[in-house]
Amino acid sequence: MTTSTTQERPARNGVDVPTLFATLNVVKAQPEIAKFQFRASNQWISGVHSRSTIRGFYGAGQEDTSRDQDFSYDADHPAVLVGGNNAPTPAEFLLHALAACLTAGIANIASARGITLHEVTSTVEGDIDLLGILGLSDGTVRNGYEGIRVHFTVKGDAPEEQLKELVQQSQRRSAVYDVVTNGVPVSIDVNAA
Amino acid sequence: MTTSTTQERPARNGVDVPTLFATLNVVKAQPEIAKFQFRASNQWISGVHSRSTIRGFYGAGQEDTSRDQDFSYDADHPAVLVGGNNAPTPAEFLLHALAACLTAGIANIASARGITLHEVTSTVEGDIDLLGILGLSDGTVRNGYEGIRVHFTVKGDAPEEQLKELVQQSQRRSAVYDVVTNGVPVSIDVNAA
Repeated sequence: MTTSTTQERPARNGVDVPTLFATLNVVKAQPEIAKFQFRASNQWISGVHSRSTIRGFYGAGQEDTSRDQDFSYDADHPAVLVGGNNAPTPAEFLLHALAACLTAGIANIASARGITLHEVTSTVEGDIDLLGILGLSDGTVRNGYEGIRVHFTVKGDAPEEQLKELVQQSQRRSAVYDVVTNGVPVSIDVNAA
Repeated sequence: MTTSTTQERPARNGVDVPTLFATLNVVKAQPEIAKFQFRASNQWISGVHSRSTIRGFYGAGQEDTSRDQDFSYDADHPAVLVGGNNAPTPAEFLLHALAACLTAGIANIASARGITLHEVTSTVEGDIDLLGILGLSDGTVRNGYEGIRVHFTVKGDAPEEQLKELVQQSQRRSAVYDVVTNGVPVSIDVNAA
């Protein structure tokens, strides 16, 4: 499907397409290596300010050791929500996760289909009525977003319809889109002292 | 409910409790100011590497201007997923969002209840079978996490049962927990050229 040639670097759009297809073939032969576990650890700092550390994960049959340092991200609330404004809200990080997942899919799918991309940008908006989380609703207002809208601009060397199909296929295969639209069971346990 | 006294700083756990309650009273009187819109914009860089910018949001009846600079976060895939390992995966950012939202709630609720916290830490694990996003499943494997587990450690000046209740109440009032467990409608449109 790819039109990459060996005299050029194997990447299209920065995606190593031969390795991408090779990876697919390895997983087809050994489907058990597709089981991954991702993790984050979080530490409360003060107020509603906290910091997450992301590094290790399990996948491809082993504990990953490829990351040579921790990734670290703060979260906080703005002043209007009685926070310190040190970082975005957790709900905004969820929008980042959604946009980034769909965009990664677009890049992989375009590369597999031999389409060179020039630009992929998106804006994500989430509407939330804080009567829910503030406990001021009569039960009709949910805690989370009532709706999320994603606006993509995709430019590349393909007809408009093929570029739009990249987004549609990414939507069909996005991990974060699936979780955010369909939900996932979350269990919580507490060690308190 | 708070035991804060005016001769001390009004914060408990770094939460400005009088302002928190004042905010609740303002919203009770004007519930329409509880309507917020959060946003992120994302730009593809190369491969599956992208960058989101977070800054502006609408809330409390106006466009927020309190943030004096953009927050910026990259996302990428690790090498085993044919990425550049420049940043965590989008699916890991979702775990950060979940942990940080629950932790913010714990801090606010503890402060409102007059409980001084000493430590709130958590680890979040999400299990995902990549046969879904790789398109190698017969339809039985979903794209996103199959389950997420959150383990909290909470230490504070209150009996164990009261500390555990902080987590339970945060779970009942968390925006991200709601979205991640129940899902939310997401609409996507594309401008392609």
